[in-house]
This record gives sequence, C-alpha cells and structure tokens, in this order.
Amino acid sequence: MNEFALIQQYFKHTALAASNDPASSVVLGIGDDAALIQPPAGQQLVITSDTLVAGRHFPVDTVAHAIGWKAAAVNLSDIAAMGARPFAVLMAISLPEVDQDWLAQFSHGFFACCAPEQVQLIGGDTTQSSVLSMTVTALGWVEPGKAIRRDGAKPGDLIVVSNTLGDAAYALQHPGSELQERLDYPQPRNLLGMALNGYAHSMLDISDGLAQDLGHILTASRVGAALHLEQLPLSATLQQLPREQAWQLALTGGDDYELCFTIAPERFKQFCQHYAGQFQLQVIGQIIASPGLTLWYQQQPYTMNLQGYQHFD
Amino acid sequence: MNEFALIQQYFKHTALAASNDPASSVVLGIGDDAALIQPPAGQQLVITSDTLVAGRHFPVDTVAHAIGWKAAAVNLSDIAAMGARPFAVLMAISLPEVDQDWLAQFSHGFFACCAPEQVQLIGGDTTQSSVLSMTVTALGWVEPGKAIRRDGAKPGDLIVVSNTLGDAAYALQHPGSELQERLDYPQPRNLLGMALNGYAHSMLDISDGLAQDLGHILTASRVGAALHLEQLPLSATLQQLPREQAWQLALTGGDDYELCFTIAPERFKQFCQHYAGQFQLQVIGQIIASPGLTLWYQQQPYTMNLQGYQHFD
Repeated sequence: MNEFALIQQYFKHTALAASNDPASSVVLGIGDDAALIQPPAGQQLVITSDTLVAGRHFPVDTVAHAIGWKAAAVNLSDIAAMGARPFAVLMAISLPEVDQDWLAQFSHGFFACCAPEQVQLIGGDTTQSSVLSMTVTALGWVEPGKAIRRDGAKPGDLIVVSNTLGDAAYALQHPGSELQERLDYPQPRNLLGMALNGYAHSMLDISDGLAQDLGHILTASRVGAALHLEQLPLSATLQQLPREQAWQLALTGGDDYELCFTIAPERFKQFCQHYAGQFQLQVIGQIIASPGLTLWYQQQPYTMNLQGYQHFD
Repeated sequence: MNEFALIQQYFKHTALAASNDPASSVVLGIGDDAALIQPPAGQQLVITSDTLVAGRHFPVDTVAHAIGWKAAAVNLSDIAAMGARPFAVLMAISLPEVDQDWLAQFSHGFFACCAPEQVQLIGGDTTQSSVLSMTVTALGWVEPGKAIRRDGAKPGDLIVVSNTLGDAAYALQHPGSELQERLDYPQPRNLLGMALNGYAHSMLDISDGLAQDLGHILTASRVGAALHLEQLPLSATLQQLPREQAWQLALTGGDDYELCFTIAPERFKQFCQHYAGQFQLQVIGQIIASPGLTLWYQQQPYTMNLQGYQHFD
C-alpha cells in the first residue's frame, strides 16, 4: 500500500468515526469501487462538484484547516442554494507530497464543516500532482418540485441576501484583518437554505459577487432587478470605508457564499414571523419585469462602473 | 463571462445535444447551483469519483480525444464493477489554458465514451491550473441488495476476468505499439457488469494490476486465492513475450480496466449459457478458505517476485 492509498485509509477511518447518523441513507461508504446510497422515499437527489486550486481559490499560504473547511463549505453552499438537505460528500484531492500534519489539519477542517449537518464522507480519490487542488462532490435530498432553482424569480419578488456582503473580498485585500475568518471559513447557509424551501421563488449562493450571481437569476428567470445601494448589508469594517468602495466590494466581491433569494413580499413576511430572529436577512431590492440590473441610491438611479462585472444581457 | 465560464457553456450545449434518453432520471442538468435527479422507484444510487492528472495517469502527449475518453471510462468502469447501470457524470476539469481545438477533441472523446449507455453530463466545474487534471464523478442505479461488492467472495468461487490482461502496461512501455489503443481507450465493461448482477459474488475493476486488485477482494472477503498462471488471458502480443515477462504484465500491470469477479461454478455455467458468446471471459483460479494469494503453474506452486506488488495480509 503506497502513501496515497494510506491517506485514503486515513480519511476512511476519520469518516467512520464522524458518522453516527442512524437515519443515514448511506448503505456503503469508502472502500469499494463506489459508494452505495438508498434514496429516502419521495426525495430527489441534488448533486454538485466544485474544484479549489491552490493560488486561485485560496492563497497558497492558507492554513490546511481552513482549506479543508472551505473545500467542504463551497460545495455544501451549493446544496443550500437549492433548498436541499446535504447528506454526503466525495473528495478527490491532489497533493504535491504527503505531509501527515498537513493532512490531519486539512481533514479536521473538512469534517468540522461537515459535522453540523451530519454530512458523511462516502468516497473520493487521492492522487499526486505538483499543484494542490481538490474537487468535492456534495449530495443532498429535496422533495420533488421543491428545489429552489435560478429560473423562478417573478416581478414583484423581494431580493434578499443573508448576513453581510463583500467581507471575503476585503479580507483578500487586507491579509490578517478582522475579516480574515470570513474569507477562510465561509459558512454554508444550510439551515437557511432548507428553511426557505416552500418560501423562496429562486435562489443561489454568492460566489462570484452579488451583481454577477444575481445576473444568473435574472437571465434564467427573464426578469430584471432594482437594487438599493443603501440597503446592501455591510459589516462594521466595510461601513467605515468610503461609500462607493464598500458597495464595490459588496456588489463584485466573490467568496462570500451568502444566499441570495427572491420571494413574494407576503411570503417573506410569513417567513420572518415563522423563523423570528433565527436568520440575519436583508431586503436589497425587487425583481422587475424589464431586463437588466439597475442600481438606486436615495430613490435616484445611480451609475457605478462595477469592477470585473460581466454584463448578462 | 470569462473564458472558463464559456467552456462550461460549451460542455452544456454539447451535453444537451447528446442527451435523448426519454426515460432519463435527470430533472435538471448543468446551469444551476446543482443538478437534480429523480431516483427511479426501487433503485439504489451508486457513486464514485476518480481523478486523472497529466503525466501520472496518462502521458502528457496523449491526444485530447483519448484523455476525454479515459476520464469517462475509468469512472464508468467503477460503476460497472458494482454491477450497476451508469446514467450520469459530473466533470470538474482544471486547464492550464483555453485551447478550443483541444477542448473540442477532449469533449468528443468524453461523450463518445458516455454515448453507448446514454450517460449524461449533468454538472461539474472548470478552473485554471498549471497542471491539466480532471475529476469525474459517475452515478449509476442498482436494485437494493444487488450491488456486487468486494466482500462477497466465497471459498469455491471461480475467479474470472474479462478479455486480456497486461496490455495497457505493455503499451505504456512500448509507445506506438499495436496495443496503444488498450492504454488510450480503455473500455468500461458496463454491459458485462450489469449482466453479472445476480450471478457474481464479488467484483472489481482492475486498475492497479490483477494481483493487487484481487488482493482487495481477498482482504474484504477474508479468503484466499489460487491463480493458475497458464490460464491468464494474454493478447497475441503478450503471448510472444518470454513467459514470466507476460505474466508479470498480466499480474501487476495497471490501467486494464477489465472486470475481475468471483462466482459459484454452477452459476458461471448458467451465466455462460445465458449469455453465450457475448463476453470474452477466462477462469483464472479459485477462491480458497486460507488467506493469501498463491500462484500455480502446471499443478505446482510457482514463486514469482511480483514487481510493485503490495502484500495485503
């Protein structure tokens, strides 16, 4: 058994120790040609794959624990964005060398992110490559017809985002700042995603910046949006920046992994009553029939040259 | 939209053109945060992820069409090895640069391998990296309790392999030889894998060499095996090599992606009658109660130092 096979054993044992879910749908995990899953009755499978490459998706000097966390988080976030319940992941990792300490930290970070929703590692692959990278595949369950897609936004819907925006981009520009955690440890919003099931008309997670990602909803739903800049939720740090600089971060900064969803106003009111105080949500605008994204400030149209923003219509 | 997003669009359009299965379980493919699948009634999900890295899993000068084929093949082979029916794949690819010609060839190869079983591309990711690599996740369906695992081998079972062994390893040592296709275009044995469902006690695909891979079955099933060297199925090319050299390739050469399974003798007879002539199969030995792998030649124990062979007990 070579070093890389040993790593798979390492993950297997750590994975088994972390898995105590008696209602698990996982029949067979790591160790055979493939994993085996019993779909729960009346559920559809949600599945996504995302790759992180050192130096592109995280700085090369990022601590291993944070890399492991992020590899899980960006994929669990995609499951959250569908309004689904995550239950399993596969991880294919390519490593330049075998460093036991690094691997221990990496796997602790990975499993720490998986733990709250009892997400199990059920398979994957370990290979050698000169560039550190990992591809995680995440799986979730959702009731038929209940997945929250990008193409369901309707004129009149409120546009809502979770927590604050632009923090990860700020942290990338200011290493070691008080917002470093927001870059290194993005929180997949799985509880919120599941709670919005049956409420939201459309949803996605913000990985490439609000403007660009909201654009995907607008294109898929063939609608437009009016955003109110003074309503963008900003952390205390970003509130101290010059106004336009903070908006720029909030609108175009990637890596936030907050949820952006659209929802009928009366349903949003009911949602907030039902989940009073459980989630930090901010209405930032409204879906309109005419295509395109328009920015507003103090009831006036506002023009900003969004850095790196790609027009979508 | 950047170059890499454009590639995803490229794969999406090619994927849609390739998907005509009216009985598809895929509700939503590429284009949202995740794909959505409706499990067919009474089926379990089989899932696997494997990574190919340039220079490790294929020579760097391999043509793009063959790389695309192999990326699909090695994963569909894992689904075959479970006795399951493949139906979908996700592909996460990391590319040093965007070369349209290369991508066209790569995707043609990938979809060509997926086409016979109508396997659909339902998601993935495209990223930039200095090293070309790809992680494919393959999904299949199998009836509950019918997956052919590694831990079901029983003393008295015949050990059977498909087609010929060692050809890919020979081709790696002899670039441009008549066996080059066996290295570049491994054939996932999906029809055989599905046919063996209900017949075989244990199965896997041979990716690391027969001796090592069979060892996984022996360890998982807590049994041993007697292999008869004169029964190893060899291609015409390998039959012309010195005897031990050919056996060495057949026993330790990787990348064959043939199936190795164990089956009760009477069930094998029934299988061969039922599928007369449809598959090229060779009995190479028998499962025994005492652990370990023993080699036999002309009814005598035979000692060989298997290159790169890792003992499993």
